[in-house]
Amino acid sequence: MTSVFDWLDTRADERRRAGLARQLRPRRHDADHLDLAGNDYLGLSKDKRVTGAAAAAALRWGAGSTGSRLVTGTLELHTELEHELAAFCGAQAALVFSSGFTANLGVLTALSGKGSAIVTDAYLHASLIDGCRLSRADVAVMPHGDVAAITHALKTRRSERALVVTDSVFSVDGDLVALRDLHAVCRAHNAALVVDDAHGLGVRGEGGRGAVAEAGLIGEPDVVTTVTLSKSLGAQGGAVLGPRRVIKHLVDNARSFIFDTGLSPSSTAAALTALHILKDEPGLPERVLTVAQTLAMRLKEAGLKVSAPDAAVVSVMAPTAEAAATWAEDCRAAGVWVGCFRPPSVPDGVSRLRLTARANLTDAEIDHATEVITRHAPRGAS
Amino acid sequence: MTSVFDWLDTRADERRRAGLARQLRPRRHDADHLDLAGNDYLGLSKDKRVTGAAAAAALRWGAGSTGSRLVTGTLELHTELEHELAAFCGAQAALVFSSGFTANLGVLTALSGKGSAIVTDAYLHASLIDGCRLSRADVAVMPHGDVAAITHALKTRRSERALVVTDSVFSVDGDLVALRDLHAVCRAHNAALVVDDAHGLGVRGEGGRGAVAEAGLIGEPDVVTTVTLSKSLGAQGGAVLGPRRVIKHLVDNARSFIFDTGLSPSSTAAALTALHILKDEPGLPERVLTVAQTLAMRLKEAGLKVSAPDAAVVSVMAPTAEAAATWAEDCRAAGVWVGCFRPPSVPDGVSRLRLTARANLTDAEIDHATEVITRHAPRGAS
Ligand SMILES: Cc1ncc(COP(=O)(O)O)c(C=O)c1O
Ligand SMILES: Cc1ncc(COP(=O)(O)O)c(C=O)c1O
Repeated sequence: MTSVFDWLDTRADERRRAGLARQLRPRRHDADHLDLAGNDYLGLSKDKRVTGAAAAAALRWGAGSTGSRLVTGTLELHTELEHELAAFCGAQAALVFSSGFTANLGVLTALSGKGSAIVTDAYLHASLIDGCRLSRADVAVMPHGDVAAITHALKTRRSERALVVTDSVFSVDGDLVALRDLHAVCRAHNAALVVDDAHGLGVRGEGGRGAVAEAGLIGEPDVVTTVTLSKSLGAQGGAVLGPRRVIKHLVDNARSFIFDTGLSPSSTAAALTALHILKDEPGLPERVLTVAQTLAMRLKEAGLKVSAPDAAVVSVMAPTAEAAATWAEDCRAAGVWVGCFRPPSVPDGVSRLRLTARANLTDAEIDHATEVITRHAPRGAS
Repeated sequence: MTSVFDWLDTRADERRRAGLARQLRPRRHDADHLDLAGNDYLGLSKDKRVTGAAAAAALRWGAGSTGSRLVTGTLELHTELEHELAAFCGAQAALVFSSGFTANLGVLTALSGKGSAIVTDAYLHASLIDGCRLSRADVAVMPHGDVAAITHALKTRRSERALVVTDSVFSVDGDLVALRDLHAVCRAHNAALVVDDAHGLGVRGEGGRGAVAEAGLIGEPDVVTTVTLSKSLGAQGGAVLGPRRVIKHLVDNARSFIFDTGLSPSSTAAALTALHILKDEPGLPERVLTVAQTLAMRLKEAGLKVSAPDAAVVSVMAPTAEAAATWAEDCRAAGVWVGCFRPPSVPDGVSRLRLTARANLTDAEIDHATEVITRHAPRGAS
């Protein structure tokens, strides 16, 4: 009848042939698989204190925030979370967004723009890349981990105003960026540093204050940090931490803040309670790191090609996209859920299993996971 | 010490002088003001069945979905909501996003791109505008409500592939677009139609099936509809409704779907329960429209300049941005919360009070609101 979407079928065929078609796998609430795929690093998403706070907040405040943050969508709960998050990490102020994704879009568009420069690492998270694209700034993408290249780009930029944008812990391999070096370069060349600490909060730094705090940079006047409430804090949402004037500027200018409904009461309360638990149990982050390192060591001993984890993420290389998909599928069939990252989700084009550590994984579970993953490894994985 | 953010202070001064500085106003959970500012059109956000479902889901499923939708973040709850939403509205399939904002970004970027054209209405919602910017398509912005101009732009486009993008109900004045005309134009010129029905779902159409269903277009093979779960459904999140091949394409390609944590269990369950209530109480949408029209009539009778509401939104023009801010502040001080839209949130540059109708507003509350708004009207408002 009408053919305007026929091209979608062609694309779907291409994906299928390349082994890149994806499939949603709905979870059951009582599923009893061993989860090495989610980002619930501290195991707080199902913690009774956290779920109890989420439930109580829905009953008390309602199911939604009912409006954008500047109209009716700011609750005292949001303000409380913003104050506690800023105080915990050591930033002047914080602002809660409905997701880490929209927090990144908001920061990059509001702090940048036409006539300004952005210099980034090639392995940036997709939400930061989209933020760069939306910003209309002059964007220069440097090779992964190459501080010298970033320095060169800053030196030779044509705009006075500049941001250096990076993940703290890269989401695919879990490797840490050299934050202190990057900041020194920014200082020397009059640029601001924007760091996405999505995988650092709750895992790195003293008591889980994050990788930016660990590097001693969280309170610096030229550093802006974004986090998500959906990983270590087990909830949903995102936040920006930084100098008070930056936060004020976002309230007035960040389109993904102004034109988006405020975070739901239950997610806000859940993140707040998770933050309290993190404060009360400062040993949790260390446990995640230990679990990640143990897991990586075991898999390496079994002959697999494994990343050296700086945080909760452990990557295991696969020979091809199809082998990665089958490997992950076999592990899942054996009751161990692992992530599978294929192009375009892997910046280097190498497909991998992506495993995540959790503070409440037992040694027996680590052993079992190692055994299952090794047993199903494809030819060429070791 | 460092001056990279000094320009933010200059900008803040400019906003203050122009009367455009904004302020977050945290709500208390027991606030007893009369709310004519939120988007909880059916009053379901605080409905005990909805908040109960949100609470139960947090306890049963956890506070967060723990991962992106393609990894661990798809729950049976999401699939259930997707099926029921598609069936209710009359679309082939649906896909839930973490917000209406990210749903719009996802649709526009995945269905468009370099070498394709987008034709839009000038009063588009910010999230659609950002989606257009991100898409890298050749974007042509036509005057508000000008179907002839859209036709001309389609005829003279240089790319074969094209989308026409519009709100169904515009968010500032609550006016309806001529959907059937737009669709006929799209058909005639081989373009797809993308409609944001954020303010139509739950308000327009038979039993609140939305403005796209009302126009008889929701099941068409060349129409894609986005909605939000945060207005009539009282929760948080967004969704895309459309042909199955479009939904499949989004799963594989929409970056704001793939690289974003899945919607929280409590928000998903709340939206699902709100949808059940909407099905059971098909008179709710009509009541919202009646309330909006009554409110508009009363304010007009009192001499104010009021939009003719096609949905739940009623706009009241103010002479200046500062007068609008003071007017809204005075109403709030008198216990009636109203929205205040100023540049850059108003596409025509005219500041206004933005009132919203709610199905459970009583006649006495409408009388009271009219009295308070009229009493505080600034010189030049009538
Ligand atoms: C590095 C990084 N930044 C941002 C995000 C987006 O956060 P959210 O899922 O809260 O939108 C993610 C993952 O989802 C991430 O891994
Ligand atoms: C027309 C329109 N589209 C999209 C959105 C964004 O939806 P959400 O708040 O769920 O992100 C809104 C309002 O917030 C809106 O008014």
